[in-house]
Amino acid sequence: MHILVTNDDGVNAPGLLALSQAMRALGKVTVIAPDRNWSASGHVKTLERPLRVKVAILADGSHAMATDGAPSDCVALAVLGLIPEAVDIVVSGINGGENVGHDLTYSGTVTAAMEGAITGLPSVAVSLDVPPTLEGALNYGPAAAIAQKVVANVIANGLPDGILLNVNVPYLPLDEIRGVQVTRQGLRIYKDALVERTDPRGRLYYWIGGEAPGGVPEEGTDIGALNAGYVSVTPVHLDMTAHQAAKQLREWKWG
Amino acid sequence: MHILVTNDDGVNAPGLLALSQAMRALGKVTVIAPDRNWSASGHVKTLERPLRVKVAILADGSHAMATDGAPSDCVALAVLGLIPEAVDIVVSGINGGENVGHDLTYSGTVTAAMEGAITGLPSVAVSLDVPPTLEGALNYGPAAAIAQKVVANVIANGLPDGILLNVNVPYLPLDEIRGVQVTRQGLRIYKDALVERTDPRGRLYYWIGGEAPGGVPEEGTDIGALNAGYVSVTPVHLDMTAHQAAKQLREWKWG
Repeated sequence: MHILVTNDDGVNAPGLLALSQAMRALGKVTVIAPDRNWSASGHVKTLERPLRVKVAILADGSHAMATDGAPSDCVALAVLGLIPEAVDIVVSGINGGENVGHDLTYSGTVTAAMEGAITGLPSVAVSLDVPPTLEGALNYGPAAAIAQKVVANVIANGLPDGILLNVNVPYLPLDEIRGVQVTRQGLRIYKDALVERTDPRGRLYYWIGGEAPGGVPEEGTDIGALNAGYVSVTPVHLDMTAHQAAKQLREWKWG
Repeated sequence: MHILVTNDDGVNAPGLLALSQAMRALGKVTVIAPDRNWSASGHVKTLERPLRVKVAILADGSHAMATDGAPSDCVALAVLGLIPEAVDIVVSGINGGENVGHDLTYSGTVTAAMEGAITGLPSVAVSLDVPPTLEGALNYGPAAAIAQKVVANVIANGLPDGILLNVNVPYLPLDEIRGVQVTRQGLRIYKDALVERTDPRGRLYYWIGGEAPGGVPEEGTDIGALNAGYVSVTPVHLDMTAHQAAKQLREWKWG
């Protein structure tokens, strides 16, 4: 069992280290991760420039590869032959911050798993629901233990073609996590605001600022599960067709 | 009717000019587009750096704004208040190259429309299915006429909340286009290959290369419609839950 581990917080992120260590109990692990943070970077295929790959050493002394590409590029490089041995499963994370609702298409963590699913590999994204007010170093231990359990399940049971798992873990000690819920994607509520500033040369520039996003904690959704202290496991596919709208569109006058 | 026009090929792209001209028949048009090409850039929210905005002049002398953000950033800037007047509809394109099947999450053109849909606006992405062997300047005229018809329909009928339209136009003269099909997302087949090169200093670098992607031209899909000479209109939503896999996952041993 050859497990490819990547992330979007960059090769030096503690969540990547915790995940790679947890995966070693399940098989051979290869780590290929971005050399910098790619949060909210979306699903990238870098075609306009070449990619560089360097050897990196994680904090536990284990070897990794760092690229100047996006998380999804890391998966593409591995699958297209950067490493000689075939990859059996892609695991991305552990992201410092949840990826729920509409976050999916923005998230480097999730889009790395999308890249895995598109290439036909079972793929899992793992994110930790960090309270916005929390300061200091995060404890990725419980989320790593959950990731190990989920990936062991994927190895034992397989995943249907083209489906990835989006896993979000509440920020709780392992014995306070209430269990696992299989969920659907919930409704994210963004609270972005435009912040206008003036640079030292008198020219305007703009930040996308505002508060951290919220969401509707509806039962059965990813947001609802986290809110109730459960791990959320959402099966995700790449088909974004809004089938329920097709009939209405067919009635329009197309001429 | 205030129409925001953006794209992912950059503010100087001829497809943006053709689209903005076609939209002027339907309302007031504001153009905010990236200052460079963002193809295959994915759904980006630029949070780690501020964004700059400059005035740009399109080839017909009309005014536009160019930003150093992604297509989705252009939509966010407009909606969050960069321009004083509220936006009624977002139209993105015309992309030089089709966006079908799994292209959706990669595509800057489509993710700009996703950003519009997330903010609650009716949104349309328009792409032109350019034959890979075609050389020289593209004729965006037929696709611009089709875009005008689609957006007129959206203005007349509205779109359900959270749904965008992904429109792909075959590269044919207007009178050879066979009509409009409301489709579902088809199956893309990527033919990427890793290309290894050595730089003048003897160090390796890598291109994601290979052939242009293909696809399964199944009837009822975006790829099938283009293949048969029809305009493809796919209703798209942001819910990527694979509901059909939930039952199976609930039967796994979660402990």
